[in-house]
Amino acid sequence: MNHQELMTHYLSSFIHTLHQHHVREVVISPGSRSTPLAILLEECAEIKTYLDIDERSAGFFALGLAKGSGQPVGLLCTSGTATANYYPAVIEAYFSRVPLIVLTSDRPYELQHVGAPQTINQANMYGEHVKHFFQFEMSEHDLSLLKYNQAMTTRSIAESTSAPQGPVQINVPIREPLIPGKLLEFGNQNVENTMITVEQGKRALSNTQLVTIAAQIGQAKKGVLICGKMESIGIESSVAALAAKAGFPILADPLSQLRRGGHDLNNVIESYDTFLRIESAALKLNPDLIIRLGAPPVSKALKLWMQNQTCMNIVVDGGMSWRDPAGSATEMIYCDEQIFCDDLTPLISIQPELHWLNSWKRLNQLTKSVLSGIEEEQELSEVKVFRELAEWLPEDANLFVGNSMAIRELDTFLFVKQRSATIFGNRGANGIDGVVSTAVGVALSRKNTILALGDLSFFHDMNGLLAARQNLADLTIILVNNDGGGIFSFLPQASEKAHFESLFGTPHGLDFVHTARLYGADYTKVKNWVEFQQALEFSKTKRGLKIIEVPTDRETNVANHRALQSLLESRIEEEWLS
Amino acid sequence: MNHQELMTHYLSSFIHTLHQHHVREVVISPGSRSTPLAILLEECAEIKTYLDIDERSAGFFALGLAKGSGQPVGLLCTSGTATANYYPAVIEAYFSRVPLIVLTSDRPYELQHVGAPQTINQANMYGEHVKHFFQFEMSEHDLSLLKYNQAMTTRSIAESTSAPQGPVQINVPIREPLIPGKLLEFGNQNVENTMITVEQGKRALSNTQLVTIAAQIGQAKKGVLICGKMESIGIESSVAALAAKAGFPILADPLSQLRRGGHDLNNVIESYDTFLRIESAALKLNPDLIIRLGAPPVSKALKLWMQNQTCMNIVVDGGMSWRDPAGSATEMIYCDEQIFCDDLTPLISIQPELHWLNSWKRLNQLTKSVLSGIEEEQELSEVKVFRELAEWLPEDANLFVGNSMAIRELDTFLFVKQRSATIFGNRGANGIDGVVSTAVGVALSRKNTILALGDLSFFHDMNGLLAARQNLADLTIILVNNDGGGIFSFLPQASEKAHFESLFGTPHGLDFVHTARLYGADYTKVKNWVEFQQALEFSKTKRGLKIIEVPTDRETNVANHRALQSLLESRIEEEWLS
Repeated sequence: MNHQELMTHYLSSFIHTLHQHHVREVVISPGSRSTPLAILLEECAEIKTYLDIDERSAGFFALGLAKGSGQPVGLLCTSGTATANYYPAVIEAYFSRVPLIVLTSDRPYELQHVGAPQTINQANMYGEHVKHFFQFEMSEHDLSLLKYNQAMTTRSIAESTSAPQGPVQINVPIREPLIPGKLLEFGNQNVENTMITVEQGKRALSNTQLVTIAAQIGQAKKGVLICGKMESIGIESSVAALAAKAGFPILADPLSQLRRGGHDLNNVIESYDTFLRIESAALKLNPDLIIRLGAPPVSKALKLWMQNQTCMNIVVDGGMSWRDPAGSATEMIYCDEQIFCDDLTPLISIQPELHWLNSWKRLNQLTKSVLSGIEEEQELSEVKVFRELAEWLPEDANLFVGNSMAIRELDTFLFVKQRSATIFGNRGANGIDGVVSTAVGVALSRKNTILALGDLSFFHDMNGLLAARQNLADLTIILVNNDGGGIFSFLPQASEKAHFESLFGTPHGLDFVHTARLYGADYTKVKNWVEFQQALEFSKTKRGLKIIEVPTDRETNVANHRALQSLLESRIEEEWLS
Repeated sequence: MNHQELMTHYLSSFIHTLHQHHVREVVISPGSRSTPLAILLEECAEIKTYLDIDERSAGFFALGLAKGSGQPVGLLCTSGTATANYYPAVIEAYFSRVPLIVLTSDRPYELQHVGAPQTINQANMYGEHVKHFFQFEMSEHDLSLLKYNQAMTTRSIAESTSAPQGPVQINVPIREPLIPGKLLEFGNQNVENTMITVEQGKRALSNTQLVTIAAQIGQAKKGVLICGKMESIGIESSVAALAAKAGFPILADPLSQLRRGGHDLNNVIESYDTFLRIESAALKLNPDLIIRLGAPPVSKALKLWMQNQTCMNIVVDGGMSWRDPAGSATEMIYCDEQIFCDDLTPLISIQPELHWLNSWKRLNQLTKSVLSGIEEEQELSEVKVFRELAEWLPEDANLFVGNSMAIRELDTFLFVKQRSATIFGNRGANGIDGVVSTAVGVALSRKNTILALGDLSFFHDMNGLLAARQNLADLTIILVNNDGGGIFSFLPQASEKAHFESLFGTPHGLDFVHTARLYGADYTKVKNWVEFQQALEFSKTKRGLKIIEVPTDRETNVANHRALQSLLESRIEEEWLS
C-alpha cells in the first residue's frame, strides 16, 4: 500500500472505532493538517460534523453537545495554537465531568523540535486536565499498528466515559500529502477491526457498609441532604425517595435538576441561599447529619453554614474527586450516587422527625413569599428577570445559565414546579468564557433551549454566534446587560472606589444590536416587563437565533438584593423565630 | 502584622521587583482573585496598566506590547479557565521568543483539589511552552519568604529575557480577604528589598572558531546568506556588512527587517519565493555555502530549494533552538547572531564572486518587474493590495501582517527601500488567532501601526478591538475579505470539490460593517484602487481605530498568482537563462 492507502486505512479504522464507541458528533475547525481526518469524518454518514471556525468556541460547542446528548463528542483542529484554544473547554469538561474526545492533528515526528511552522509540543499539552493522552501513530509501511491503535482509541473513549467522565486527548500526527482516499467500511468479518467491547461496572457499597449508614441515618433526628449537579439520568426520584424515607430536607442546587420535574418535590428546599444569610435563622438550623451528593452547590451561604456545623458530614462521590471545598467532610463514600440512594433507602427504618423538616419548609415558604414580592416591581431589574424567567419556563425547556451573577440569581429565584425543565451551567471551573458556545451545543441536541447570561460573559464568546448561525441552532439568549462586571458590586472590592470602575466595573459601552446584526439574530431590547414577556413568547414561535436584551443597573441590583434580605430578616423575626 | 499587612508587603515587594527588572507594562483582565495584585499594580505610577476583558486577547495584547517595546510585559488574570485563555499567546511567545511575565492568580493551597470554585491545576499549566515556572507563596505569619520570592521573581524575569527570550509563569495564590493596603515603597536602604542585579553575557565564538568559518567563506565561490526574523536591534547593518565583504546575496524574509531601512540594501534579494518556484531557474542556482541567521523564513519555495542543495549549511542561533525544519543543516553555531557577524566580517579576505551575486540580482530584478505588472490591474485583488500597501508604507511605519495568505502576499510584494519600516508578524507558531490583539499591543507602543490580515484571522480575534478602543490605540486595519480560508485554494485540498467549501473555504458571509459599528471604528469598504489610496492617506490623519476593507475573490487570487508565475517563467526563459 502507498502512503495514501495506508493513511486512509488507518484513519478509516480510527473513525470506525470512534463510531463503535458512541461518538456520533464531531466539531471541526478548519485547517490544513487535519484535512484527511476532516474529509473522512464528513464522509462518514453515521457521524454528524459541525463546523466552528474559532477553536475556543468549538471546544465549548462540543462541550455543549456532550452535555445535551450525554454522549462523548469529538472535536478536531489543525496543529499549532489552534489546539491551545481548546484549553478552557478542556478544563471545564474535566471539572464538570463531560466526555470530550479531543483530536489534535499534528505534524509528523520528523518535523518536531526543528522550528517547523505550526508545530508546538502537543503531547500532553493539557497537563492534568485530561484523563488520558494517546499518541496515534501510523506506519508508512504496513498496517501493523492498526490493532494497537484501535485498542488505545477504545481505551481512550472508555476513560472519557467512565466515572468521573472527562476529556481525553488523542494526538494524530499526519504526513503529507494530506489528501485521503474514500472512507473504508469495516464489517465484522474484517478481523483486524473487530470491535473491542468495554463493559463498565459501577461502584456499589457492600450490604455491611450500607447497613452502617442506614443506622446512622436512623439515629439522626435532624438530617439534611445537599445535592449539587449529579451525573446519573433519573437520579432525582432516587434522591427524593431517600429524603422522604429519612424525613430529610433536600437543599437542592439549581443544577441538581431536583427543583423541576415529575419526581416528588415535597422535601425540596430552594431558598436556602437567601435565608441562610440571615444569622438568626442559620443558627437555629443545627443538623446532626449531612449527606451530600453531586458537585458542590453554587450557594456561598450554604457553604459557610456547613462550615459552622460539627456533625457527621458524608460526601457520596462515584467520581472520587474529593469534593469538599468547605473542608467539612467526615466520611467519603466512593459509590455511584444513584446506586447509593437506591440500595440505602429500603434499609432505613425511621420515624421521620417532622418538626425538623417542617421548620425548613416553613422558612423556605416564607422566604419564597418575600422573594416573590419583586414581581410587583415596575422597573427593569436583574432579579425580576430571573424570577419571571423561572416562572415562564415552558415544559421541557432547557435553560443554560451563565456564571458569575446569572447562576446566583437563578439559584435565588428558581422555585420548585412539577413542570419539567433541565438546567445547564458550566460549573466545572465556573469561567465566564465559552458560555454562548456551550449553550449553542445544547441547543443543537435539545429543543427549547434558552441561555440567560450577563454582558461580560456574552462579550467573551460572541464568536460562538457564528457557529450558531452556520449550524442553524434554535437558541434564545436573554442578555442581562448591566454594562460590566455585576458580581463585583457585591464583593469587598466595591469599597475600593479609586479602582473599582477601571478594574472591576469595567464598563464597555457596547451596543449589542450590532452584534445581533452581524450574526443575523433576531434582536429585542426590552423597555418594560410586558415587552419582556412578549419577547419570551415570540421566541417560542421563531426559529434561529434570538437575543432578548434587558438593560439593568449594577447599583440597583445590589440595592434590590439588600432590600429583599432586610425585609426577609424582619419577616423571619416576626413569623418564624417567634 | 495581620493578613492584609503581610499580603500588601509581599505583593508590593513583588511589584517593586517586577519594576526593577524592566516590567513597565501589565495587561490586566478583570477578576476577583487577582484583586490585590491588580489594585497595587494600578497604584504603581511607574507601571502602566491596560485593561482587556477577554484573556485570550489580553495574552496577545501583551505579546504585541512586548514586541513593540522589546521589554518584558506582564499579564494578570484571575484563577480558573481565565488562565487557560492565555495558552495560545504563551505558545506564540515561546516560539517567537518574546518575554512575557504571565501572572496567574490562584486560590490558596488549602482550596486546591477539593472542588473549590474557579480552582484548577495551575502549576506548570503551560507545560513545555514556558521557559520557567515559579510558585509565589506568601506567609501568613511573617516576611520570611520575602527575600526568596524576590530572588525567584528576579530569576523568572531573567529567564524570560535571556536568549532565547520567552514566556515564564508566576503563579500567585492569594488568600481572602482580598483587599490590600496602600502600595509600599521600597528604598535601597531597605535591606530586605535591595535589588538583585542580573548581568547577562552573550554567546560568542573563539577566534579559532571564527578563523575556521572565515576560511570556509573564503573558499566559497557561491555563498548565500538566508535571514529570517532576528532578535538583535540594529543587526541589519552587521548582516549587510558581512554579505558585502563575502559577496553573498542575502535572501531576506520580510520579518528579517532587511528589506527596509537605512542599511546597505545592495545585496538584498526579496523575490526568491517567486523565482525559486520556477524549476529552470532554481536548478541554475547551486550554492556551495549557505549561512542562515534567525527564524526559518516564510517561503516554502526557499525551503524546498534548500533541501535540494548538498553544500555546507550553517545555522547561527544564539537561542539554540535547532531551527532546521528543512533538515539541511550541516553545522550549528550557538552564538549571538550580531556578534557572529561583527566578529567574522573583519576576518574574511575574499575577492567577491560578482558573477554569482549578479546572477541573483538580475533574476531578482526581472522577477520584480514582472510582479510590478499587477500595478496595472483595475480590479480589486489581494495581490495588488499588498503591492500597493508595500509601496505606500510611510517612513517609520510599523506593519503587522497576518498569517496564512497575508504574510505570503507580503513576502512576494515587499520590495527593498531605504525608507524605514518595521514588519511584525506572529511567526512563532503561525496561528491565525490573536493577530488583532497583537497588533493593538504594537500600536500602543509604536506610532503609525498598520495591520493587514485576512477575514478569518480578523474574525478569530474581533474581541481584541474592544481593548483597542478602551486603551485608545491608533491602528489602521486593512481587512482583505475573501469570505473564507484563502490559502486552501492553493493547496491540494482545492481538488476535493465535495468537501472544499464546507471544510476549507468556510464562507461566513459576515458583513464587518457591524463589527466596526460595535467598536466605534472608522470603516471604509473600498470599491476601487483610488478609494484604497484615499483610505490609506486618510488613516494617517485620523486617530483611533480605522478599518479599511478590501473585498477580494479567492479564485481570482489563485488565477492572479498563476498568471504571474507563468509570465515570469517565459520571461526567465527569454531574458535570464539565455
